[in-house]
Formats: sequence, structure tokens, C-alpha cells
Amino acid sequence: MRDAYHEELDGLSDKLVEMTRLVRSAMTRASTALLDADLRLAEEVISCDEQVNKINTEIEETVFDLMARQQPVARDLRMLIAALRMSGDIERMGDLAVHLAKTARRRHPESAIPPELQATVLEMGQIAERMIAKAGSVIASHDVEMGLELDGDDDQMDRLHRKLFDALLSPKWRHGVEPAVDISLAGRYFERFADHAVHVAENVVYLVTGEHAADIDLAE
Amino acid sequence: MRDAYHEELDGLSDKLVEMTRLVRSAMTRASTALLDADLRLAEEVISCDEQVNKINTEIEETVFDLMARQQPVARDLRMLIAALRMSGDIERMGDLAVHLAKTARRRHPESAIPPELQATVLEMGQIAERMIAKAGSVIASHDVEMGLELDGDDDQMDRLHRKLFDALLSPKWRHGVEPAVDISLAGRYFERFADHAVHVAENVVYLVTGEHAADIDLAE
Repeated sequence: MRDAYHEELDGLSDKLVEMTRLVRSAMTRASTALLDADLRLAEEVISCDEQVNKINTEIEETVFDLMARQQPVARDLRMLIAALRMSGDIERMGDLAVHLAKTARRRHPESAIPPELQATVLEMGQIAERMIAKAGSVIASHDVEMGLELDGDDDQMDRLHRKLFDALLSPKWRHGVEPAVDISLAGRYFERFADHAVHVAENVVYLVTGEHAADIDLAE
Repeated sequence: MRDAYHEELDGLSDKLVEMTRLVRSAMTRASTALLDADLRLAEEVISCDEQVNKINTEIEETVFDLMARQQPVARDLRMLIAALRMSGDIERMGDLAVHLAKTARRRHPESAIPPELQATVLEMGQIAERMIAKAGSVIASHDVEMGLELDGDDDQMDRLHRKLFDALLSPKWRHGVEPAVDISLAGRYFERFADHAVHVAENVVYLVTGEHAADIDLAE
């Protein structure tokens, strides 16, 4: 019985990694849809989110079931709670990719991103992709050092987010209100996506070290 | 030992209710700060959030401690997990009130909300306040019917949110880009605040009935 139980625990980790793969693919497509006004990609992101939600529900059910049947303690219990939290974060990241895709769809056939901001948004999309990819690796490998790297990625995202706002609010802005509103919300979605990736990694770091990421100083 | 344990469980519920009181007060002040360009209120919201975060951390620590020491099962275990989730949601609601307060502070001495949108934003603030107040009552009383009412409040919030966007994107909009950006983000903060209140209530409904809120039809 314990063996089947530990197989189920491993299965949870596999499912979380699968979620990060789906969300990474959604984020890649959502960023491209936004930049290139690609309606087909936007629709794909929107329709594929169901799959992410389904795995999230499966993970929740497995966790509750394992808790009820196995009365896990100590590390196993912490792992189940971490799985629940990570699954929630990744599911939310999928929603944020959908919000970006819907912005692209609403502005189609125009691009939601004017030429002078394309490079910034491209970079935000690339960082978002990198962060969800790293979050997946961290879940699979329990690599604490990589987990802590996400803080640096998040700082980069915050810098680009500010750059985006500076452009919108500059006297040189020539595109009017509607694109400004879309871009300010898109910036917020990217930024929240990055925050959730950091949370996912923090959960793994906490599981492995028993310490909150903020208390760890790797330089020591 | 079991008695002290159940006292600790009750203590968790009291702490959650206390968080909702603090966040309700923050939301009331943040809405007023936004509408009336009241810098003092905005600063209060920003500095008081620390208290909400502190209780959230205390709840997390108590939950982990109880899980490790008491190996709770069945309903007690579900209650602890629900407490963890609700605490996370309410903490996030506090952050959203802070975002609103920071918007007010950035635009001071002007109001971030032009006259023709004051009534809409006032109503959004009132609904947000009502929702967090109800969430607190639902936690304290386990009143399922009130828990399910929050869905209706959320629909109202969504309607007002759309109304706000319609105004920003109308050809009659005369206030330029910066207020439009601030208001679109503020609208998003109110809307997310409402979503989190719904989640809090859903957790209680699930605890009491064992069913997810979406599956319950009170009319039957």
C-alpha cells in the first residue's frame, strides 16, 4: 500500500511538470499572438486552457484523497500541501496567458503592441517562458539554486514592466487610449505571471530546505 | 491535548475573521482615498497592510505546526487546508487594497477618478466592502446561503467593471491616457478583490457541504 502511495506522490510531481509544459506552450503562443496579431494562436491558447484546469482539478482530488486515506505526516504532508499550492499558481498562470490571448483576439487584425514597444513585449514574453520552464525544472529536479534564480528573472520582468509604463505615459505616446489600456493590462498579466512562477519555486525551495527562499543566502 | 488543539482550530477562525476586518477597513479607506484624493487615508492603507501579512504568516505557521503535531484527519484536515487557502486569498485582497491606495497616492492632489466615473467607482468600492464583510461572516457562521450570495455580488462587480471600460474606450473620453491607464488597473484590482472573496466563501461552502459551490442549487 505504501508503494502505491509513493507512486501517487510521484504522479503528482509529473502532473505539475505537465501543467508547466502546457502553460509554457500557452505563454509562447500568447506572446506571439499579441505581437503578430495571430488569431489562430490566440484561439489555441484560449481553448487549451481547459486541459490545464483539468489537471489542476485532478491534482486537488488526488491530494485530498491521499490525505484522507493515508494520513501523511512530516515531509509527505508538506509535499502534498506544496503540490496544492503550486498547482493553484500554475493554473493561474494559464489564466494569465489566456488574458493575453484574449487581448490579441480583441485587437485582431491589428497588433495590440505598437512597433516601438514590440521589443519590450517580446522580451517580457521570453522571460515569462523562461520562468515557467525553470519552474518546471525546479519541480522535477528540486534544484534549489535554479529555484532562487527566479527572483532575478522577476526583477528583470519588473524593470520591463516599468519601461512599458514609461512609454505609455510619455508625452511621445501617439496611439491613444485603447492601446494604452490594453498594454497596461497586458503588462500587469506578464508581471503577475512572473510572481506566480516565483511562488512555485519558493514552494520547492521550502520543501527541500525547510527555509523560506528570502532567508537563504547562497553567497555564504 | 485535544482540547488545546480544538482551541487552536477556533483561534484560526478568529484570526481569519480579524483579517477580513482589517481588509474591509483597508478597502473602505482605499476607495475613499481614490475618490476624494485623500492622501492620509491612502498612506494608512499602505502602512496597515503589514498587520494583515503578519496574521497570514501566523496562520500558516499554526497550520503547519498543527499538522505536524496532531496529524489531523478528515474534517479537521480539510479545515486546516481551507484556512491556509482563505488566509492566502484574504492576504491578497489586502494587497489589492494597497494597489488602489497607491494609485490614489500617485495621482494626489488630483482624484484618480473623473467626475463622470465617481458613481461607478463608489459602487465598486461598496460592493467590495460588502463582499469582504460577508466573507468574514461566512467564516464565522458557516452560513452557506450567504456564501453563495457572493456569486451574485461578483456578477454585479463584473457589470460595473465593464461599465468602467466602456467609459474609458468611448469617443467621449476626454481625460487622456494616464487616467485611463490608472482606472483600467483600478478596475482590475476591484474585480480581482471580488474573485478572491468568492474563493473564500467557496472554501467555507465546501467545508460545510463537501460540495463545490458550483454544484449546489439552492432553488431545489
